[in-house]
Amino acid sequence: MIQRPRGTRDFGPEEMEKRRCLEAIMRREAAVFGFREIATPIFEYTELFTIRSGPNIIEEIYAFQDKGGREIALRPELTAPAMRFYVNELSNSAKPLKMFYFGQCFRYERPQSGRFREFFQFGAELISNPGPESDAEVIALAASIMRRIGLKNYNIRVGHIGVLRNMLAEAGVDSEVAPLILQKLDKKEYDEARQRMRDADMEEEQIERVVDITNTVGPIDVLDKIEGDARDHLLGIFKILEAYGVTDIEVDLGVVRGLDYYTGMVFEIDAPVLGAEKQICGGGSYSLTEMFGGEKTFSTGFGIGFDRTLLALEKEGFEGPAHSMDVYVLPVGDACRQEAHRIAAELRLAGVRTDIDLMGRSLAKSMKYANAINAQRVVIVGEKELAQGAVTVRDMNAGEQRLVKREELLAKLGHY
Amino acid sequence: MIQRPRGTRDFGPEEMEKRRCLEAIMRREAAVFGFREIATPIFEYTELFTIRSGPNIIEEIYAFQDKGGREIALRPELTAPAMRFYVNELSNSAKPLKMFYFGQCFRYERPQSGRFREFFQFGAELISNPGPESDAEVIALAASIMRRIGLKNYNIRVGHIGVLRNMLAEAGVDSEVAPLILQKLDKKEYDEARQRMRDADMEEEQIERVVDITNTVGPIDVLDKIEGDARDHLLGIFKILEAYGVTDIEVDLGVVRGLDYYTGMVFEIDAPVLGAEKQICGGGSYSLTEMFGGEKTFSTGFGIGFDRTLLALEKEGFEGPAHSMDVYVLPVGDACRQEAHRIAAELRLAGVRTDIDLMGRSLAKSMKYANAINAQRVVIVGEKELAQGAVTVRDMNAGEQRLVKREELLAKLGHY
Repeated sequence: MIQRPRGTRDFGPEEMEKRRCLEAIMRREAAVFGFREIATPIFEYTELFTIRSGPNIIEEIYAFQDKGGREIALRPELTAPAMRFYVNELSNSAKPLKMFYFGQCFRYERPQSGRFREFFQFGAELISNPGPESDAEVIALAASIMRRIGLKNYNIRVGHIGVLRNMLAEAGVDSEVAPLILQKLDKKEYDEARQRMRDADMEEEQIERVVDITNTVGPIDVLDKIEGDARDHLLGIFKILEAYGVTDIEVDLGVVRGLDYYTGMVFEIDAPVLGAEKQICGGGSYSLTEMFGGEKTFSTGFGIGFDRTLLALEKEGFEGPAHSMDVYVLPVGDACRQEAHRIAAELRLAGVRTDIDLMGRSLAKSMKYANAINAQRVVIVGEKELAQGAVTVRDMNAGEQRLVKREELLAKLGHY
Repeated sequence: MIQRPRGTRDFGPEEMEKRRCLEAIMRREAAVFGFREIATPIFEYTELFTIRSGPNIIEEIYAFQDKGGREIALRPELTAPAMRFYVNELSNSAKPLKMFYFGQCFRYERPQSGRFREFFQFGAELISNPGPESDAEVIALAASIMRRIGLKNYNIRVGHIGVLRNMLAEAGVDSEVAPLILQKLDKKEYDEARQRMRDADMEEEQIERVVDITNTVGPIDVLDKIEGDARDHLLGIFKILEAYGVTDIEVDLGVVRGLDYYTGMVFEIDAPVLGAEKQICGGGSYSLTEMFGGEKTFSTGFGIGFDRTLLALEKEGFEGPAHSMDVYVLPVGDACRQEAHRIAAELRLAGVRTDIDLMGRSLAKSMKYANAINAQRVVIVGEKELAQGAVTVRDMNAGEQRLVKREELLAKLGHY
């Protein structure tokens, strides 16, 4: 047997119905918020991702040379491609520009529970002006998606990258050293973070205040601990979110989100049911367009880990829609086959999901198959009934059957 | 600026709405026929495609080594992955097994009009028994899709790989030489085909009869030219298709479909509006499972070139759905902003597609933006009206506006 590559998945019909159901809810909610779908290629020039994330990213992605010697890579995320597309072709669009996308991403890492080499991301990006309205809009969309998909238990934590950055700057930390400290704080590796702050000549009191802020999580009141633009911006966002009815959120001043290109608000959503790997959404405002040769613009957005979100829903009992067929058409003997095909064609033309025996099976075996595909009705086409201009319709749930005139069949089966 | 890789495309909101509309029709029709969706990874072990298509395929695909030294390739088509999935995990499913898929495929070739390095394919595969019912079912689905998407001008040509293969076998042509002759006949390169037949010691009369059959296209009567199992099978298929109401089809005994793994019925659909590169669908019955380590099974299916099909529709005038927003909410001044957000949240919760000013724009500029996004209604939230417990609703198509009580707004806008 030829296996599929490690860390990838095949999805059978049941799994696909569940996934399409979840995708449709996310897609619909983005449209309700006025976001519109875009799509970009599965691979990009590798440069796009090294500019965004640094050269080390190459170790973690599927990067290779094409036959023309060009360095290309399977996309590890979708924000950089969306911004490349914006810079190349969409920069003259009316603002705000509200975009969403859904698709595969790839990373080369050891496969583990809930983490795959091919995974799916749903995301939204908003290009607008830097007021709290823009940030509140994307947080509200992410929160509404969580509500619509029916996830029972999740936490939304909102912070601001400026709080810790400003504290480090005010303490005299060099702008090249600060990211190294923030990395450690992001991973909650406080001993290493403290050491790096000491190496940057920060005073013990300043250091402990930074660690304290990093651990500051709670309702909006915790913003009293800080002051300045970041505080005002977060207060503005929370005021709008309150009007939006999004009240199940916390301030978390320790959200750092690793990467350097975040510029202001940052937020994360996690699903505790997932345990250690619980983050299902991350986002914030960022600045990438100028790195890709465009003008600097304000952008804010998020990415939802589709697979992990589905896993969280499943752990909470989500099963997806039950599969069924509307009608199964069953010819009794070859003489009725032609008429059975005619009936199937009529029903299908009317949009009724209709299956028909293709295997020349006996009545008993066909009924078994109709059960296996969860057919709601079986239309039995027999010679005796056809001679009377009728067919037998069996309701598989009620277990009842009755004779229906051939010319009334479509009307009877078309709407139930 | 960082460009996207050559031969790939970005899709903006208008294009995506058109594509999703077409995809939804195909997807819906497959479901109406009782087919269910599956999905496989973007890349596979390269071996999967060389087993199916021979080692030369590597020159035409994106094949590379991953970091672990494994040979992997971006999938150039979706039948081999679907059959690999079947062999690995689905072989115990109830038969018939009816599957469809939609997704990106990749080939490394010089990009040209309507041909891309990243392209999209919609396809269906049916695993069943080898009666004419199975073949008729997949042809009927392909034909129904063409009808549903509204393509005005297309030709469906059905043939049988056995006709020419049998003629060559009866003329004593070696089974290893026959494919080389069939390749030339497939490309309508008759001089080379004749030469190869002469090299295989065929008589002139036999050769001209093969060329004549290759050019045999027409209504079902042309089957009188041949005899044997292939003829009976095609007659059986045409009889079922007639009952299915699929009558816009021709016999074409010259459909060879290049690849060796086809076993019986073969068919093609083309859209003459596309000119030289007019084929939009190809299919037939084939045998792949035993090459992938499974049991030999009868399978039949087709692939539709999604991009070319869309191009054909566009050349015939298809424009896709017009984009619109249901409601645009416009606060007049900052004092009304909080209430405007509340209104937007209410409407969105009710599933009304609602946009709201994020840029603090003036009334005039906001109306211009509402026009740009084709908003059907604008809800103007002003202080004076709010004091009366009301807002102004402007119908953008009629150009009329009226005062609506705040508590009646949702009922008024929720269903129009």
